[in-house]
Amino acid sequence: MRVGVLGTGTVGRTLASKLVSLGHEVRMGSRQAGNEHAVEWAREAGEGASEGSFADAAEFGELLINATAGAASLDALGMAGGGNLAGKVLIDVSNPLDFSRGMPPVLAVCNDDSVAESIQREFPGARVVKSLNTVNADVMVTPDVVPGDHVMFVAGNDDEAKRQVTDLLESFGWPRERVVDLGDVTGARGMEMYLPLWLRLFRARGTARLNIGLLTE
Amino acid sequence: MRVGVLGTGTVGRTLASKLVSLGHEVRMGSRQAGNEHAVEWAREAGEGASEGSFADAAEFGELLINATAGAASLDALGMAGGGNLAGKVLIDVSNPLDFSRGMPPVLAVCNDDSVAESIQREFPGARVVKSLNTVNADVMVTPDVVPGDHVMFVAGNDDEAKRQVTDLLESFGWPRERVVDLGDVTGARGMEMYLPLWLRLFRARGTARLNIGLLTE
Repeated sequence: MRVGVLGTGTVGRTLASKLVSLGHEVRMGSRQAGNEHAVEWAREAGEGASEGSFADAAEFGELLINATAGAASLDALGMAGGGNLAGKVLIDVSNPLDFSRGMPPVLAVCNDDSVAESIQREFPGARVVKSLNTVNADVMVTPDVVPGDHVMFVAGNDDEAKRQVTDLLESFGWPRERVVDLGDVTGARGMEMYLPLWLRLFRARGTARLNIGLLTE
Repeated sequence: MRVGVLGTGTVGRTLASKLVSLGHEVRMGSRQAGNEHAVEWAREAGEGASEGSFADAAEFGELLINATAGAASLDALGMAGGGNLAGKVLIDVSNPLDFSRGMPPVLAVCNDDSVAESIQREFPGARVVKSLNTVNADVMVTPDVVPGDHVMFVAGNDDEAKRQVTDLLESFGWPRERVVDLGDVTGARGMEMYLPLWLRLFRARGTARLNIGLLTE
């Protein structure tokens, strides 16, 4: 499959490399084609890896991943172009962390809205699925680095899109019975608002290789 | 020990009954002495159980529990009286759920503040520990209704207060190795902002007898 990964940070590069290793063709997009992180990634990832502008990557991909910073996502997707998003599954991995007021970061949007919802509103033709934002990049693509039955969430308005994302998660190593469907895209609020707890768990345990399990009666 | 429980809802009554069953003397406080839920609770709970105003309960207790609605907690504690809180461990179990804008509820305070922090600011003499708000009442007092190694959090500025609360949690059935210290009282943000995720997990699994485990590398 052809995948467009928007964003050149650790999350974008880690997801893009995993996708290449699974045999997908991946184009990494950034504000301007020739971004040094993207060029270096494409050279190291080898066959199947390329880079370009946000619009290049979005046009290229049959499936898209938003791995830009949450506060910059609408802008990046605007540069990608609504027409390049229309009808495509768009996995929103972003977190709206705002570090401008110091540590710990606050969320740039929360409570009655989320990044995923704002993307879905702005680009109604995109089939937005929120996922992967609740774990760090290592855990996203190698869930076994954390032992035990920890879980991954999906939320979005399009059931078929969530099934496709669940298939992709399974190819990353997430058993499908550990993928929890949180319903429509407003479920992204809970997933994004989990971040302050994650940051404290990280501090308490001293490792970012952590995740939560879901236990019921 | 003498415990003052502020609040007559399901959470307050469930915690108060558990405390009586463990041999503590418990006074349930409400806006006005003679609240029908409190009177009924005291009659059913039997020896060791009494009821009164917020101030009566706060004066009575060596340890206090805020089980009022988060949006009403500062008001309730104001009625309890700052002098009755001074020097005492105050377990804040509240969640700032605001149902006034329909379902799902939003949080009345979040992101850069929390109910627990607002209580600690308003009543600096109280030794506020946030805990128990991340599970429903059944699970609070009978953690074994959910099988597996699910966790409970504590957050607060006073380490000795957190130790006392951890002892109490252990007496409720929470093994101390499953009590996770999230640091100072600002850790309450993450615990309160977890609620939107909890509400979605509840909907996804169809039971409120649920909790999360914490898994690390």
